[in-house]
Amino acid sequence: MHEALISFQQRNNQQLERWLSHLPHQNQALVDAMRYGLLLGGKRARPFLVYITGQMLGCEIEDLDTPASAVECIHAYSLIHDDLPAMDDDELRRGQPTCHIKFDEATAILTGDALQTLAFTILADGRLNPNAETLRIKMVSTLAEASGASGMCLGQTLDLQAENRSVGLAELEEIHRNKTGALMKCAVRLGALAAGKKGLAVMPLLDKYADAIGLAFQVQDDILDIISDTETLGKPQGSDQELNKSTYPALLGLQGAIEKANNLLHEALQALDAIPYNTELLEEFARYVVERKN
Amino acid sequence: MHEALISFQQRNNQQLERWLSHLPHQNQALVDAMRYGLLLGGKRARPFLVYITGQMLGCEIEDLDTPASAVECIHAYSLIHDDLPAMDDDELRRGQPTCHIKFDEATAILTGDALQTLAFTILADGRLNPNAETLRIKMVSTLAEASGASGMCLGQTLDLQAENRSVGLAELEEIHRNKTGALMKCAVRLGALAAGKKGLAVMPLLDKYADAIGLAFQVQDDILDIISDTETLGKPQGSDQELNKSTYPALLGLQGAIEKANNLLHEALQALDAIPYNTELLEEFARYVVERKN
Repeated sequence: MHEALISFQQRNNQQLERWLSHLPHQNQALVDAMRYGLLLGGKRARPFLVYITGQMLGCEIEDLDTPASAVECIHAYSLIHDDLPAMDDDELRRGQPTCHIKFDEATAILTGDALQTLAFTILADGRLNPNAETLRIKMVSTLAEASGASGMCLGQTLDLQAENRSVGLAELEEIHRNKTGALMKCAVRLGALAAGKKGLAVMPLLDKYADAIGLAFQVQDDILDIISDTETLGKPQGSDQELNKSTYPALLGLQGAIEKANNLLHEALQALDAIPYNTELLEEFARYVVERKN
Repeated sequence: MHEALISFQQRNNQQLERWLSHLPHQNQALVDAMRYGLLLGGKRARPFLVYITGQMLGCEIEDLDTPASAVECIHAYSLIHDDLPAMDDDELRRGQPTCHIKFDEATAILTGDALQTLAFTILADGRLNPNAETLRIKMVSTLAEASGASGMCLGQTLDLQAENRSVGLAELEEIHRNKTGALMKCAVRLGALAAGKKGLAVMPLLDKYADAIGLAFQVQDDILDIISDTETLGKPQGSDQELNKSTYPALLGLQGAIEKANNLLHEALQALDAIPYNTELLEEFARYVVERKN
């Protein structure tokens, strides 16, 4: 899977650069900061999910560039805004200065805003397979639902409100289902929609898979915040504890959190068992989510 | 026109409230702040342009609610982010505390983000006339182009960079064509797209009209910042001068700026002359733009 991850990462970067290069005012701080926020590192987990889901369903790689790029723009914008002083106040991201440190706060706000917009430009204007053309507006709707007040923005709000107070397991899952899970699920859904009707048919199973790995991703993030180090993470180790954030290890103990991650992996694999296509890469990705070190 | 303005304003508010009421977590700060930012006052100039353009071309009012609501969400989000401490640092908007004063900065950032997303949810999911269904994705593309790094966000960046230095007339127009003009033009375009092919045919003339009134709107804003008072404006009078912003009166003198506004009005009316429909309300709106007191 590692090779596929690197290869889709490179492809996604090229695609994103292509969209950026079409913007006017290339010499402006706004475009520089968009490029910085989009292209400086990152695992590209969400584009990867788009590509492997779509290819499993028979899509050509060129038919997946559009949703893969769109979902990464949303993810990149959310990181830039989350790092702002008024939010998580992080100075380091992927081992580099965060956007508002590298540029300034106003530019970081506008850059996040413009990257969100770019996601919708890409979905509206980008290449799709003619078979998926009738589902293009469904892709817009799916991405918007996952990103806004029914998804990611809601999750971030719930997360901020949960700081400095104790939160139960159900509430923590609600936070992460929205904050991280919604967009990962959206990535899988967009990959399926790009395959047309074939994708719609397996959507419920893919949703189950995505729900499980989305949550597992967060559980593993929480675990890594404790057991990893700043250099490997590319961001300060222990920052959750510093902000008094509720985490899975805090609620379940480290061993309990590791079990939780493994149970979610099992759920994800069960969902894949019922999908009548070659689910090998989706399976490997699920394992990667709970085994990764950063 | 005043009655039509009030009536469309009320209709737009009801529509926006309907969208807000469908969001989950109604008791959350995020939804409260979205409601605050969207529904507390405002002229609703952009929805008005959608409605009068579409109705001129034969649309039913119900076929225009979707683009009217979407464009207002983008406008509302931009105001919330523009008012942030790192941007224009305004504490008063429409005579009320700005979003980050009423709530807090983190909530204001997320609220703006979620309102931008809501605009695209509305365009993707909202009712359109079946005749305009094939143009729905074109509406998404049009709104995104006007909002992001090719339009409004670019304009705001250029505006911030122009503070505390002298800017020529061409540069000032470039700023405002993007910052204010792009979204007003988008409103007119969305109204035309909602009418289907009929709208496409008159788009070039409507663009001319919208370019002129978009710029005139800003010239008049600059004039009002000098000649009006804080109570009438609903925001601090003289705030442009305080930020050392380049304005039309600063470059052309007050009399020159008034002439500029009138020339733009003339351009707008000329474009309307060539449109073979009843352009009365578009004409009245153009006059209102340069005659308004707040």
